[in-house]
Amino acid sequence: MTQTFSYTRVYQFVHSIFIIMGCSKEHADVAAKVLVSADVRGVDSHGVARLSGYIRLWESGRINATSNFEIVHQTPSTAVIDGDAGLGLVVAPFAMQVAIDKAQQVGTGWVSVKNSNHFGIAGYHAMMALEHDMIGIAMTNASALVAPTFSKERMLGTNPIAVAIPAGSQPPFVADFATTTAANGKLEILQRKNEDAPTGWVQDKDGQPSTNANELKNGGALLPLGGDRDHGSHKGYALGSIVDIFSAVLSGASYGPWAPPFPAYVPMPENMPGEGLGHFFGAMRIDAFRPADEFKRHMDQWITRFKEAKPIDENQKVMVPGDPEREMEAIRMKEGIPVVKAVVNDLQKLGEKFGIQL
Amino acid sequence: MTQTFSYTRVYQFVHSIFIIMGCSKEHADVAAKVLVSADVRGVDSHGVARLSGYIRLWESGRINATSNFEIVHQTPSTAVIDGDAGLGLVVAPFAMQVAIDKAQQVGTGWVSVKNSNHFGIAGYHAMMALEHDMIGIAMTNASALVAPTFSKERMLGTNPIAVAIPAGSQPPFVADFATTTAANGKLEILQRKNEDAPTGWVQDKDGQPSTNANELKNGGALLPLGGDRDHGSHKGYALGSIVDIFSAVLSGASYGPWAPPFPAYVPMPENMPGEGLGHFFGAMRIDAFRPADEFKRHMDQWITRFKEAKPIDENQKVMVPGDPEREMEAIRMKEGIPVVKAVVNDLQKLGEKFGIQL
Repeated sequence: MTQTFSYTRVYQFVHSIFIIMGCSKEHADVAAKVLVSADVRGVDSHGVARLSGYIRLWESGRINATSNFEIVHQTPSTAVIDGDAGLGLVVAPFAMQVAIDKAQQVGTGWVSVKNSNHFGIAGYHAMMALEHDMIGIAMTNASALVAPTFSKERMLGTNPIAVAIPAGSQPPFVADFATTTAANGKLEILQRKNEDAPTGWVQDKDGQPSTNANELKNGGALLPLGGDRDHGSHKGYALGSIVDIFSAVLSGASYGPWAPPFPAYVPMPENMPGEGLGHFFGAMRIDAFRPADEFKRHMDQWITRFKEAKPIDENQKVMVPGDPEREMEAIRMKEGIPVVKAVVNDLQKLGEKFGIQL
Repeated sequence: MTQTFSYTRVYQFVHSIFIIMGCSKEHADVAAKVLVSADVRGVDSHGVARLSGYIRLWESGRINATSNFEIVHQTPSTAVIDGDAGLGLVVAPFAMQVAIDKAQQVGTGWVSVKNSNHFGIAGYHAMMALEHDMIGIAMTNASALVAPTFSKERMLGTNPIAVAIPAGSQPPFVADFATTTAANGKLEILQRKNEDAPTGWVQDKDGQPSTNANELKNGGALLPLGGDRDHGSHKGYALGSIVDIFSAVLSGASYGPWAPPFPAYVPMPENMPGEGLGHFFGAMRIDAFRPADEFKRHMDQWITRFKEAKPIDENQKVMVPGDPEREMEAIRMKEGIPVVKAVVNDLQKLGEKFGIQL
């Protein structure tokens, strides 16, 4: 039920769509690279599957393809950026670069962004720091789908956190995860297969445990990492809240249940307390703490030791965050990106509409 | 099975013990305040229950009561501190103050610490930022008790993260949590009551699920937040790893399975790659991002809105991180601190040994 396309073919198609939206060549280059990096790394829910969603946001006037984002406030180690309702796919790399530039100057850089939109995978932005021998951090708030512990109301997005840490001869440590038990994309996979979800992923509209993968359509909610109080859901709720506050309250974006929805057909919340979605980025220069080569030698030892940790099952070795995505990237850059039929149809329709061949 | 003591009485006792250890008055003031803040906030496992553990570490020469900690490297926004094997209870507030001072200068401050010891509750240190209108962050690595996803080996500590965020008329947001499903202290409570643990807290020595609260004594391990792969344990494992790397690899402390053990009778690991335990602290000045009064007004709205989120059960309202500990603090400062009998006996023995009345 999938059709496989080369990276180049997918990239070109996405790039052409962004050009038609009115993006500059420079912006389309970045946006296409960020979006397709999700498909390449195996995070299929955040790649081309979302392209028509971005288009609908643009058509409804919620995304400004010719945005002029700018720094509205700064100190030597911080900045706030107004995304001018631009594509998060473009605003985010710009903001991460500001964090990197500040880290070059004073050791670390921290940037909060308002008035933006969905930014693709957090990991892409965090990883921008690696080539500069820096630790990179990226997070974003998102449309409310998650109920806090003890609540039946959707108050937070899946609010992901990504942290990328350079190593020496080993590949980097790259964590990139939603602060929920399972990301919404995992639920969508179960929906397509018509399978149940494990307990602890969702609850129904009354806040009762459920294994129905379609529960969100019935007014249910995703659960914070931990699942329930006994299993630490108050910690997942705290993490999602921290992401919301750093990304949106610190910048002046719209937070909590007021975060703008991704589906363009969902009306914007009333009385929004800020502008658009918010993101938060950090860059820390390794040698602002200790010599980079020394640090990387120890990261190599850290990574090697964890990979050698005694496995429960000899056939399933311990992994280091970033391993699965990097392995997927190596395969897909060589063998192409498998796209599920529903998404292929969706992209073909887009192509017809805009006169572009997939 | 508890005996209740006033805050002052517990503080005085602890203070006298630290003076006898050889701490300066200034250090004893801080150490006693930090240690007893755990009891006051209801984190009983991290307060006076640990006092004799600190003493044994001092007696075995692993804690230096007359440490001269110092900044060994710095940039405008970062520092690395060598704790000189001092009490973490004293090293940590010193390091957090350095982070705060740097934030005053350049917007944010980030401090990694090596050659330290257990620092009490992370929340105390993070909360130091609040009175300066800053966001405070504190984390630490710890003795390995936690198995990564797919492993049966103890590789990480319970590695807590604390984040304190100021508000206006509302009390501050204070998250402080172990990156495991449940902190070790919760397991100890079940052990005392001779009760089983919920699934997802621990596994046995072969890596199989267990509900035996004594599993750690049999070679088992605590589980990362999430519990198992299906419920996101790889995210808890990633979080614990990030804490380990920021605290120890960045500073030059000993990391992962080499972190020094808290019980003095446990031999130090061989071939330790760094010095002592590591901590990591951050301070971000609110007005390095937006005017502090504006931010606090929005935090008030954030907190109020989350407290009003629709509850599943009308008798259990939604809480904001920090609420339970603050309520406990109000009660215990007024009514005293209940200390379980076993800990009272332990403290009395200490008192006899050092000629101090509890």
